[in-house]
Amino acid sequence: MQVQSILETCLYVDDLDAAEEFYIRVLGLETFKKVSGRHVFFRCGNQMFLLFNPDQTRQEENGFPTHGARGEGHVAFAISADTYDAWKQRLQKEGVEVEYEALWPSGGRSMFFRDPAGNSAELATPQTWLIGE
Amino acid sequence: MQVQSILETCLYVDDLDAAEEFYIRVLGLETFKKVSGRHVFFRCGNQMFLLFNPDQTRQEENGFPTHGARGEGHVAFAISADTYDAWKQRLQKEGVEVEYEALWPSGGRSMFFRDPAGNSAELATPQTWLIGE
Repeated sequence: MQVQSILETCLYVDDLDAAEEFYIRVLGLETFKKVSGRHVFFRCGNQMFLLFNPDQTRQEENGFPTHGARGEGHVAFAISADTYDAWKQRLQKEGVEVEYEALWPSGGRSMFFRDPAGNSAELATPQTWLIGE
Repeated sequence: MQVQSILETCLYVDDLDAAEEFYIRVLGLETFKKVSGRHVFFRCGNQMFLLFNPDQTRQEENGFPTHGARGEGHVAFAISADTYDAWKQRLQKEGVEVEYEALWPSGGRSMFFRDPAGNSAELATPQTWLIGE
C-alpha cells in the first residue's frame, strides 16, 4: 500500500496579502479559499498549494493539529518545457529576479526565485525528475 | 499562463535516517535519491517529496539557492476513499498515533499524524478539495 500523490503543499508567510498577490500575479494562480490573517489556499492542477501565517497555525484551534515553520521553505511548480522561455520573460516583466537556473542531468530545466516572504520557489520541467509532462 | 501542478513538496527534518525509515515503512514510499546528511528524495505519483536537513540547505553550495525552515511543517498525501480504513489500520499497526480525523464539508476525509521530526502529515481523500480520484 502506497500513498498516491501529494495532495497539499504548504509554505509559511508573515504577510499573506503580499504572498497572495504575488502568486496570483506572477504564477497565474487563483485563490480557492482564504481566511484573512490565517491562510490562503490555491488549487494547482490536482494539488492544493497552501499559504499559512505560522503565528496563527501554531495556536491550537478546535483540536486541529498545530503546525507552522519559520525560515525559507521551498516549493517547485511544474511548467511544460515549451513554456520555459516564456516563463522566464514573465518573471522579468513582473520584476522577479531569477536567482538561479539549472540544467539538470536528466535534461530538465528550472529557474529559482523568491516569494515576498523569502521562500525559494522554482519553476521546473517535469523532465527534471524523469516525469512525463 | 498558469503553472500546471506542484512538482516538489518538501519538509525539513533533523534526523534524515529516522524520517526516511518512517516514510518508507508507514507510507510505502521508495527512496529515489539521497545524499547522506543532506537530503532524501521520494517520488510520489507525479510529484517529488523532498526531505532536507535545514542545517545543510541553509549553507550556500555552488550558488544554489539556500532554504531551510525550522518548526513543524505540513504535507498531505492523497489516498483513495476506499482505502481510508485500511490506512487507519496500517498507522495503528505501525504504532503511529492518529492525532486528528476530519470529515470535511465536501465529503472528504482525512487523518493527521506526526512524522519523527514532528511535522504534521495527513492522509486525505482528494474529495476533501473536490478533486477527483
